[in-house]
Amino acid sequence: MNPKQSIPTFDDIHKAAITIKPYAHITPVLSSSLVNERTGAELFFKCENFQKVGAFKFRGACNTIMTLSDEDASKGVATHSSGNHAQALALSAKLRGIQAYVVMPENAPKVKVEAVKNYGAEITFCESTLEARESTLQQVVEKTGATFIHPYNDSRVIAGQGTAALEFLSSNPDLDVLLTPLGGGGLLSGSSISAKTLNPKIKVIGTEPELADDGFRSFQSGNIEPVIRTDTIADGLRTSVGDLPFQIIKQHVDEIVTVSEESIIEAMRFIWERMNMIIEPSCAVPVAAIFEGKVDVRGKKVGIIITGGNVDFGNLPW
Amino acid sequence: MNPKQSIPTFDDIHKAAITIKPYAHITPVLSSSLVNERTGAELFFKCENFQKVGAFKFRGACNTIMTLSDEDASKGVATHSSGNHAQALALSAKLRGIQAYVVMPENAPKVKVEAVKNYGAEITFCESTLEARESTLQQVVEKTGATFIHPYNDSRVIAGQGTAALEFLSSNPDLDVLLTPLGGGGLLSGSSISAKTLNPKIKVIGTEPELADDGFRSFQSGNIEPVIRTDTIADGLRTSVGDLPFQIIKQHVDEIVTVSEESIIEAMRFIWERMNMIIEPSCAVPVAAIFEGKVDVRGKKVGIIITGGNVDFGNLPW
Repeated sequence: MNPKQSIPTFDDIHKAAITIKPYAHITPVLSSSLVNERTGAELFFKCENFQKVGAFKFRGACNTIMTLSDEDASKGVATHSSGNHAQALALSAKLRGIQAYVVMPENAPKVKVEAVKNYGAEITFCESTLEARESTLQQVVEKTGATFIHPYNDSRVIAGQGTAALEFLSSNPDLDVLLTPLGGGGLLSGSSISAKTLNPKIKVIGTEPELADDGFRSFQSGNIEPVIRTDTIADGLRTSVGDLPFQIIKQHVDEIVTVSEESIIEAMRFIWERMNMIIEPSCAVPVAAIFEGKVDVRGKKVGIIITGGNVDFGNLPW
Repeated sequence: MNPKQSIPTFDDIHKAAITIKPYAHITPVLSSSLVNERTGAELFFKCENFQKVGAFKFRGACNTIMTLSDEDASKGVATHSSGNHAQALALSAKLRGIQAYVVMPENAPKVKVEAVKNYGAEITFCESTLEARESTLQQVVEKTGATFIHPYNDSRVIAGQGTAALEFLSSNPDLDVLLTPLGGGGLLSGSSISAKTLNPKIKVIGTEPELADDGFRSFQSGNIEPVIRTDTIADGLRTSVGDLPFQIIKQHVDEIVTVSEESIIEAMRFIWERMNMIIEPSCAVPVAAIFEGKVDVRGKKVGIIITGGNVDFGNLPW
């Protein structure tokens, strides 16, 4: 239970890109003239919804698992998650040929449980409270000796997530602004290191739902502020910002903005209908920030990392 | 009303690629390990659902309109269509700065009417019979002097559609098999010229719904057979094969297979859920052919052209 806590360097991200290369997709960058007309900007979408397991989370989990020592790896890896990190961990472990142990709440969506199972992970169910998840994970780790892989508060995970922006700035070096969603902060922090190293003039902006604005408030105060509400539709962003990502965000990120639930849903449907991509509500948050006018993009080249496309088709917001 | 009727050469397709380059997207090729596991093959998807107007049809319309003489172009272009060709024509005309006239049935989906209108086309509504569409188009052409652009029975359109396979075989030269849907035949015929020129050993297969199998029957008999039913969910494939595409298909295509409605719907949902892409029912037809085992793909590298993603969200088959 000891995630690696140093701040990753650009060199760590570069090494992570080499580590995950045999396993991860180089995701496409798409654009849409309809979106450009609506916003008066040139928007570019780095499509991590087409990444392995349908989300950028594969990058961080894969980098971490592939760089474990053989001794640690032989005992397996463990986490608690009902989301994309669980699938990312399960597939990465399968690719390394080791066991993954995933603690999931009893009420996790069946489709997510099935996906994790299909990748060969051993699932332990628990009550859906954070306490139950943590104590069950503790038991699993004690019993198996597996290494706990935190979804974002780990240097190796952050370095992996930073490879998406590394690829993005390599294919689109002249971006003026880069937007990502902000949940635990793994993606935003890793992206900010890559982006500011490759182009010190780029503006890096984190985006959050108003109903999960702990990152915004923390950025304002300079200290990690508690989560107050977690009822946003953007389920990937309900988590609170981690210490390690927050240190990086304070240093490299220019601004954090928040958006309403209505505009998240509207932006999500717009991307589905006009760009023919399935994106999660969390991915719609940076798009909503632009549509709402929370970020000034007119005349600029704007990059957005589309984080994932794992959606419950039985529970769409329209 | 005189579409160009000569069989296009590979050189025509190559020129079309240069003509449309400033306007069209180079669409990404995606793959999915889940799909590969299910099929025992390596599948590659050329994603024309991310093309301008959300469909490959933009390629053919754009090539035709950009190569019109200035005199012809000045009087505008016309067609009757309620589908992707209408949007492709409207946007291409807008990009050339000329007027598009589109005849649409009164009962065309509102979202498609709006899209065509948004691209600046002038719409004339008529009854939804083929006779009414053709006679209304005739009136529009007589009144305006606009050039009729046929959706597939035109050498320039076929050359444009062939650019998708040209790009595909350039990025993935070692494909063993190429599958496309078969409706009017513009895509299949153009693809077959590109594919067989670049790799004479490749197998080119057309795929149709059982409920719109005129192409299959025509291929068997050697003569164009009439459409019997048009009630397939794959609305893009209800049309009958054109003379000009059919001549090319007889020469270059290896096989045509048909699939059930159930398997089209299952394949469509599978691609939505597992690959996070929105595809039309028509695009699911080649995928269904593989899932149904109608095409032997085990151990092979298989290319599929995903034709479009324009779906009525209010009327999904699940």
